Amino acid sequence: MEKILTVKLHDMEIGRLEVTLNDEDARDLGLYSKDRVKIFLDGRGIVAFLNTTKTIVKKGEIGISRDFLTVSKIQDGEKVSVVPAERPRSVDYIRKKMKGIALTESEYEAIVKDVIANNLSEIELAAFVSAIYINEMSIEEAAFLAKKMAESGEMLELKKKPIFDKHSIGGVPGNKITLLVVPIVAAAGLTIPKTSSRAITSACGTADIMEVLAPVTFDAREIEEIVNKTNGVIAWGGGVNLAPADDIFIQVEYPLAIDPHYLALCSVMAKKYAVRANFVVIDLPMGEETKIGSMEEAKKYARDFMELGERLGINVECAITYGDKPIGRAVGPALEAREALRALEGGENKVPSSVIEKSTEIAGIILEAGGVAARGRGKEVALEYLSSGKALQKMKEITAEQGGDARVTSNDIRVGKFSEKIISNGSGYVTHISNRAIIQISRAAGAPKDKEAGILLNVTRGTKVERGDVLFEIYSDSEYKLEQALKLAAHMQPVVLEGMLLKRIPEYVIFEY
Amino acid sequence: MEKILTVKLHDMEIGRLEVTLNDEDARDLGLYSKDRVKIFLDGRGIVAFLNTTKTIVKKGEIGISRDFLTVSKIQDGEKVSVVPAERPRSVDYIRKKMKGIALTESEYEAIVKDVIANNLSEIELAAFVSAIYINEMSIEEAAFLAKKMAESGEMLELKKKPIFDKHSIGGVPGNKITLLVVPIVAAAGLTIPKTSSRAITSACGTADIMEVLAPVTFDAREIEEIVNKTNGVIAWGGGVNLAPADDIFIQVEYPLAIDPHYLALCSVMAKKYAVRANFVVIDLPMGEETKIGSMEEAKKYARDFMELGERLGINVECAITYGDKPIGRAVGPALEAREALRALEGGENKVPSSVIEKSTEIAGIILEAGGVAARGRGKEVALEYLSSGKALQKMKEITAEQGGDARVTSNDIRVGKFSEKIISNGSGYVTHISNRAIIQISRAAGAPKDKEAGILLNVTRGTKVERGDVLFEIYSDSEYKLEQALKLAAHMQPVVLEGMLLKRIPEYVIFEY
Repeated sequence: MEKILTVKLHDMEIGRLEVTLNDEDARDLGLYSKDRVKIFLDGRGIVAFLNTTKTIVKKGEIGISRDFLTVSKIQDGEKVSVVPAERPRSVDYIRKKMKGIALTESEYEAIVKDVIANNLSEIELAAFVSAIYINEMSIEEAAFLAKKMAESGEMLELKKKPIFDKHSIGGVPGNKITLLVVPIVAAAGLTIPKTSSRAITSACGTADIMEVLAPVTFDAREIEEIVNKTNGVIAWGGGVNLAPADDIFIQVEYPLAIDPHYLALCSVMAKKYAVRANFVVIDLPMGEETKIGSMEEAKKYARDFMELGERLGINVECAITYGDKPIGRAVGPALEAREALRALEGGENKVPSSVIEKSTEIAGIILEAGGVAARGRGKEVALEYLSSGKALQKMKEITAEQGGDARVTSNDIRVGKFSEKIISNGSGYVTHISNRAIIQISRAAGAPKDKEAGILLNVTRGTKVERGDVLFEIYSDSEYKLEQALKLAAHMQPVVLEGMLLKRIPEYVIFEY
Repeated sequence: MEKILTVKLHDMEIGRLEVTLNDEDARDLGLYSKDRVKIFLDGRGIVAFLNTTKTIVKKGEIGISRDFLTVSKIQDGEKVSVVPAERPRSVDYIRKKMKGIALTESEYEAIVKDVIANNLSEIELAAFVSAIYINEMSIEEAAFLAKKMAESGEMLELKKKPIFDKHSIGGVPGNKITLLVVPIVAAAGLTIPKTSSRAITSACGTADIMEVLAPVTFDAREIEEIVNKTNGVIAWGGGVNLAPADDIFIQVEYPLAIDPHYLALCSVMAKKYAVRANFVVIDLPMGEETKIGSMEEAKKYARDFMELGERLGINVECAITYGDKPIGRAVGPALEAREALRALEGGENKVPSSVIEKSTEIAGIILEAGGVAARGRGKEVALEYLSSGKALQKMKEITAEQGGDARVTSNDIRVGKFSEKIISNGSGYVTHISNRAIIQISRAAGAPKDKEAGILLNVTRGTKVERGDVLFEIYSDSEYKLEQALKLAAHMQPVVLEGMLLKRIPEYVIFEY
């Protein structure tokens, strides 16, 4: 069945290809709301989802939004042929997964293909993500999915192999260690094409930090060029089309506030497969407020990452790290960039040991894997690259190659012009610093968008504090935001002293079972 | 955080409340695509879902679709205050169900409330339906859900109690028995406020058939009035707001082509609870092409319906019926109305026995439960109401009360003016009549929209057929549609003769595991 309809172009963009038909035309075509239709234009068929209406679109018309202008030169008043389109096979595979049956490689391929072609509705995507969340998947399936996710996007082609990479599954504020690990590893002559995310719900992502020093948006060819010259890069993952299905899955996970374990694994490993990594070290921060709450969970993550890596031909090593408090003192793009640069400049005494410790531990694992350091001596060698200034020199090279100013020192980095110190109104030892509160206060102050906003901690776990001592300082570009952040700080009390407030059920806790 | 934005009204309706903000405004508010926002208008807050754009909506503006005009007098150029809105608690409960944990009564209440208030996105609804499909639910949970679904809509208040009802879970074409059961039961002095659906994917629903004889769209008060006068009604369920969440769940089930067992139970029983039924007989057609393929499945349905009924205070009896071929000869609204009326008129010899048998079996169960017939004598008493003309008289009363013409006889009913007979090109016994093919051919001929379209079967299982005999006749209002239906009939061959075509994998089969 077919209908010739007149295009009615609506002045709106809704982020997906949907058309609106009059109820009567839809019924004639045997179609219902949410069905797929194919619209023929210049002999080419475009698949879109159907809305139906009694009023807005008249019989004989087809309402289309401006989204179509990105795929076609369709014009108001034009005549187009419309036919029912079949539900893609991948919906059958989603239903199969909902029934708890493992999918094959070709079935995952079909799903990924339809995901990135926008052939699946939000309902179908949500069903797929829910099915994986509920029914989980085998490592074999995860390998199929990760591989297909990678192959459906860009793949890096780097000259110098083997290729090393790192990833942190996140949850800990202040984790600026990539800005130390990449130059250490690259200075040692190993290839490390690091792509990072921007903050979604955190205070800042590595891409946000690096952007304080240099541009981070590059396509695959530009990344290859930078890495071929310097051995390393710190780029924004969003600029290069690695495993593009991942972003679409996130659009469904985010509103449900779920992070299905196996999709998380696939998301990481697909990107590592896409840069053709041979060795990856995964940082698994464990702590009350991170994604990993117990050693048991951490071990499961580690085991799954390693098994998945094995199936993808990637050697994976996992580092279970301490995640119960922020890394270092600085949280927020500019504050973190400054702290990282200070560490590279050799200002070890000005930089909290946790930053140096964690960076050299992680870098050391890569140096050992790359044969640059003997087994058990990786951290030590990493420290040498740091204290010798070689890592700083490499960072300047990478910064310059990315289009930044290599002459910038830590003292040049501007931080928020409005700031306020938070003073302790009691005394005792610091027993807890809440990651979640630190993140939320930093965001209230303007991070990650306002690069100069954030928090500088003056204490760490175990610090002895007297009444009147500075606990931390909030920075912001805006007086109003600073005010908001201060209110939140008063309410959330991110730093807990022994004897003051031992247990508190935070109001901001997400309702979770 | 709050923003004052200028309304930009888009000439489009998308079927849900969504607003579009410029990326920058969204970021300022700390919001992402799919988040909820609250828009304040005349001091009243309206919650909507967020889209973000770089181009279509400028900074300082808020793009809204015409859907908002149904809830507010919002105007182009108006200033409105926009703030982030919280994710409702029901999303937490959906996640809980995804984790396989049973929900409480108040949690189902919150979900149903948000469902009918359109507070849940398609993603969240899909996750809920997927969770129930995958993790299933206990009968206790089903009772919570059914009750809350019922209580969130209209409840019937009928004078004469107890209240009887029937329901068929469907899948068999030609199942017009409600047009016999309701008048028989009502003639016997029992109250039966029957609401029925229209066809969604079938050839016709009971509401489509009844509409040939009388209007079927009534609100709750009108239904009460008709039933208080005549003891019965055959109304369209869509006209009265019974358990309104059901329609919203269907909008998610349909595109996924899933029919979660427990949601199906809740859908039926919520509506029975809403009419305050005391006794319900459930028709469970079992057959290769119905929803129930085996006796084991049928028994599970029966057990679950009875247990759910018990928890809702409804006495449920189940009839597992033969569903391997159409009921009677007629399929399609007018053809079925004619066949039903003929049976009521006492033309037993002109009406296939399957129609009389099934109708009186089901009606008999109700007559026994209502104390009108002794145990084991229900069917016999039902037959007496039929042959005495009392059921016909009652049907005329109900028809008149619903606004139809009670003088109409079966001979007055018009059927499609274009028709074509399908002739057998072989001989043998009829071994199979495909429900699915009969449904699809009827729909191709125009049913259910064209009331006069459909199929009249000339044979049944076991009929001996000679080459040249008529197998069935297709009726349509349109020559073009008749042509389409004939093509489909030639392709699908709904009537199978022994020795001609023993086994055939139909191409139209839905890919299922």
